Amino acid sequence: MTLTITAFESSPDRGMGLARDMRVRWALEEAGQPYEVRLVSFSAMKQPAHRALHPFGQIPTYEDGDLVLFESGAIVLHVAERHAGLLPVDANARARAIAWMFAAVSTVEPPILELVIARFVEGDKPWSEQRLPLVKDRIRTRLGELSDRLGEADWLDGAFSAGDLMMVHALLRLKPSGMLDEYPSLAAYVARGEARPAFKRAFAAQLAVFTGKAPTG
Amino acid sequence: MTLTITAFESSPDRGMGLARDMRVRWALEEAGQPYEVRLVSFSAMKQPAHRALHPFGQIPTYEDGDLVLFESGAIVLHVAERHAGLLPVDANARARAIAWMFAAVSTVEPPILELVIARFVEGDKPWSEQRLPLVKDRIRTRLGELSDRLGEADWLDGAFSAGDLMMVHALLRLKPSGMLDEYPSLAAYVARGEARPAFKRAFAAQLAVFTGKAPTG
Repeated sequence: MTLTITAFESSPDRGMGLARDMRVRWALEEAGQPYEVRLVSFSAMKQPAHRALHPFGQIPTYEDGDLVLFESGAIVLHVAERHAGLLPVDANARARAIAWMFAAVSTVEPPILELVIARFVEGDKPWSEQRLPLVKDRIRTRLGELSDRLGEADWLDGAFSAGDLMMVHALLRLKPSGMLDEYPSLAAYVARGEARPAFKRAFAAQLAVFTGKAPTG
Repeated sequence: MTLTITAFESSPDRGMGLARDMRVRWALEEAGQPYEVRLVSFSAMKQPAHRALHPFGQIPTYEDGDLVLFESGAIVLHVAERHAGLLPVDANARARAIAWMFAAVSTVEPPILELVIARFVEGDKPWSEQRLPLVKDRIRTRLGELSDRLGEADWLDGAFSAGDLMMVHALLRLKPSGMLDEYPSLAAYVARGEARPAFKRAFAAQLAVFTGKAPTG
């Protein structure tokens, strides 16, 4: 049975790996699971056939036999529960890793996505320039707190987990803004994530969609 | 061993049940688990003692013996994994219920929280009035999609699950805005959640913090 995920047919970030299929690719690479990718255009994403897989008309989706999933966090958790390497065996440590997954998508990512909206959706509005510093400061609050918790550690709670995978990818979206460099320990944390072989394989695979060239191993 | 959660000492919504401790209270009531509540002031929430439990200085937290958790989604999932009634037994249905939990906190709730920010944090800004319709339209996009998926069903995917619990509570925050009434099927969905005995017990318990009166059964 082939496992299939969906990704953007036309990569809006030109292969920078910022779209959420990257999280699922990365998790599948960490888990050593082969997968196929079905590319979806922006217009097809909003059609009934894709909405049957994803009610909000987004990517990624995940299809494995009868199971259809959406939400990158849920897909990564599903992969992590079925394969070693993404969740600790100890029950308490496992629960804490899952808490970091939720923190990534629910507490850290939303203000970062607001910056994307402020720039690209409201960038031409008369309030854009005045409002941008407020949006950035809300991100800084979260980055400061995350940096304080991370401290000198390599990962958020012991060994690398699906919590780090989700958090590193949420932070990655800040790269174009330069804000990540204001928090050197977080920039180093993201760099540690990017240095993982599984990340590199996933990154090459999503970049290949943009360049049209098959990734080289 | 007593399980302890944290909640606001001074309820900012005057006991309307909009704070995130309500999700955890509701899940614990569905699971039939007794719990204790430690109330935390706004200033104490930002101090090191509370941040040791919650890196982002928020509520709720969850303490059970050696285990400390934060993020309402992670806590509800932890409760749901350990007690019957909040997740389906079938593995695929269970994964889909978890997808709805992530959808609640990652896709539906963020635009709703942006409305709270637009009103209460940026309400005095010169752009506030002009920008509010844009913020509301982003919520409407999600509500329309959610309403389409729900259709005529009682719950999002078969029987009531932790996915519905998280989604109903995320939508509850729209009640003061009146926007929920634009989508009658979603208003009815939220009302079904509120009608559950476990919801009512949880609601009474959080209201009692505001009124200072013990909840009556």
